[in-house]
Amino acid sequence: MSCDLMAIAHRAKAAERILALTDTDAKNRALLAAADALEAAAEEIIAENEKDLAAGRENGLSAALLDRLALNRARIVGMADGMRQIAALEDPVGVILEEFERPNGLHLTKRTVPIGVIAVIYEARPNVTADSAALCLKSGNVVILRGGKEAIRSNMAVANVLRHAIGAVGLPEDCVQLIEDTSRETATALMKLNGGVDLLIPRGGAGLIRSVVQNATVPVIETGAGTCQTYVDKDADLAMAVEIVYNAKTSRPSVCNACECVLVHRDIAGAFLPAAEKRLKEKDVALRADDACYGYLAQADHASEDDWGREYNDYILAVRQVADVEEAIDYIDQFGTGHSECIVTENAQTAERFVRCVDAAAVYVNASTRFTDGGEFGLGAEIGISTQKLHARGPLGLRELTSYKYEIRGKGQVR
Amino acid sequence: MSCDLMAIAHRAKAAERILALTDTDAKNRALLAAADALEAAAEEIIAENEKDLAAGRENGLSAALLDRLALNRARIVGMADGMRQIAALEDPVGVILEEFERPNGLHLTKRTVPIGVIAVIYEARPNVTADSAALCLKSGNVVILRGGKEAIRSNMAVANVLRHAIGAVGLPEDCVQLIEDTSRETATALMKLNGGVDLLIPRGGAGLIRSVVQNATVPVIETGAGTCQTYVDKDADLAMAVEIVYNAKTSRPSVCNACECVLVHRDIAGAFLPAAEKRLKEKDVALRADDACYGYLAQADHASEDDWGREYNDYILAVRQVADVEEAIDYIDQFGTGHSECIVTENAQTAERFVRCVDAAAVYVNASTRFTDGGEFGLGAEIGISTQKLHARGPLGLRELTSYKYEIRGKGQVR
Repeated sequence: MSCDLMAIAHRAKAAERILALTDTDAKNRALLAAADALEAAAEEIIAENEKDLAAGRENGLSAALLDRLALNRARIVGMADGMRQIAALEDPVGVILEEFERPNGLHLTKRTVPIGVIAVIYEARPNVTADSAALCLKSGNVVILRGGKEAIRSNMAVANVLRHAIGAVGLPEDCVQLIEDTSRETATALMKLNGGVDLLIPRGGAGLIRSVVQNATVPVIETGAGTCQTYVDKDADLAMAVEIVYNAKTSRPSVCNACECVLVHRDIAGAFLPAAEKRLKEKDVALRADDACYGYLAQADHASEDDWGREYNDYILAVRQVADVEEAIDYIDQFGTGHSECIVTENAQTAERFVRCVDAAAVYVNASTRFTDGGEFGLGAEIGISTQKLHARGPLGLRELTSYKYEIRGKGQVR
Repeated sequence: MSCDLMAIAHRAKAAERILALTDTDAKNRALLAAADALEAAAEEIIAENEKDLAAGRENGLSAALLDRLALNRARIVGMADGMRQIAALEDPVGVILEEFERPNGLHLTKRTVPIGVIAVIYEARPNVTADSAALCLKSGNVVILRGGKEAIRSNMAVANVLRHAIGAVGLPEDCVQLIEDTSRETATALMKLNGGVDLLIPRGGAGLIRSVVQNATVPVIETGAGTCQTYVDKDADLAMAVEIVYNAKTSRPSVCNACECVLVHRDIAGAFLPAAEKRLKEKDVALRADDACYGYLAQADHASEDDWGREYNDYILAVRQVADVEEAIDYIDQFGTGHSECIVTENAQTAERFVRCVDAAAVYVNASTRFTDGGEFGLGAEIGISTQKLHARGPLGLRELTSYKYEIRGKGQVR
């Protein structure tokens, strides 16, 4: 098994050198061919997906998980369109970041290069197979995919289609490899494949992220864990605050940029909370309030200590009163995950204090945290949202999948 | 012990929030005050250093290690001047990397911020204490230092001087903390201090780097390991090639950007090798040659398999013949550490092939690999040379010690 992994790593290495020298047109041709091939193979992919779904139902997978796992023609077309969009984006490789000459005449060019071999460990959704492959291919990186066992047949079907299409346009099929062995041991071995993997990106729930951080010896970018707060300041526009909280909580509660907790300034709690409750009840949001907020709400539960810093991924919202912006910042410092945080206020000074002090990938003034997303930021597409501070923060687009090197041209200079 | 570490981490966190909001002037005042204080305390520092040296002699430390450990007035003035130079550099924090407005009116500002808490694990040289503290302070980062036991008294003396000086100008002393417990257990616990350490930088030999990569669960930047090659192409200017190899090998053999192996094109081996040998013998460089090169040399040893990819850190040079630039690239791919690689050639096409294909932080055409250095690249100062591809590659200057965040300003936008 780990022998297979070594073989996979060797094939990846061989493909890496070819892909690093492949020009933009050839990469785009491969992406477009792969997109067409996905659509053409929709029936076979759906047939394999149905086997996964049947096994999932047998194993008692939840309805939500079955929904994430399910593929239909529309979803496959969505995957193909995603690949076409990535083909249309600018090539992030070969970009000159800096160019300068030193007093001794050495000419330095700092130029972007692919990272090399990127491994992605992910869970139920088979579209991650196509998304990750496309983003890595466009950025000149070879990808080793390790999806969840629930989706193994779907992932294999998708990966095979991609590999054939890539091979048919003359690039190495091994630009995309899927590990068919979904055992935990192989995943752990992948996390320790130093020399074979240049970057590991986990995409999934908190348990997966934790396991990767604990076990990986290869470089990792943590993604996803998002416990986002919205702070409603005493100087907030109340109607705006209600709409922002409503949107951040209810537009898609299962995602990492959804709001999990509202912090409300004590001077405005009495005005804000009943209005917010009325709006949130349209979507049957359950409220978990601290003692101070509880009295302002018609139908809340008492929050317990577990509610602070919790990622519900559901129509549940924690509500807590704070004395001022400093207490809001302290709360976020303690319970936030460094993903997205928001202040609603008309007071420019308070807003700047919040922006400067809150330590998160994205800090919002008067807008929903739901905007933290590669597409919404204009990056085109993303492979995840980084919540760590090394390498890249926030949405990981094509550019974030590159490294750089210094090219130094001289005329015989010695030191 | 790990209890102490938790206390250190808590103090670091408290200092982090203050330092992140400290303006450039205040940080520079602290750096200049610390530089002056180091000079003023030179005698006490030297007295403590002498205790380390005495203990080192008793424990049989090599002359080279004792030299790296030794402090005198000139070296202390050098440390102080280094801090003053860092004070004079531009503040890397608060720099706007990008600023743009989305079609929905959201205004995005991508701005540099400190990474947070940086831990540095290092070995014998006490000047790393002052260098690391200064670079971290200027970049708004709090530093936790863990030096080697050989230098503990010197490091404590230096750290105490820095802390007092920083405190005296009104910044938290805990911007700089030194772990006094030099046990391996505490070092390992530091490597696993997730939540308390945002970045760990190991500075030292291959053993230390390996231990950190294997054990750390916090984000790491690998530094230092450097096995650099110089490839002498058939179209090389021979005199230039000789001088570049001579400089790259002999100007300072103990450092990571020194040349360890010369690859020579077979068409030029007969002309190049005797000339190179003559020059290298001025510094008594021992040559370890493959069979093909051996015949061209007057006084070489036969290389063994162990010689390929070895970092000698000494006046020893491996010599190997290759058929062409492709074989040189293959060799570097197999044995290089991604640090610095050089081609000597007058053929522009061959040079570009080498530059494009060699996967290293710095790729040279017609210049000595010894230039890979923060000062030589114009970064001012460096905390190490990254040989990994994530976050930063090559010299780690002030800018490489920052992260960024997205500030998003809206007017109530929801998604």
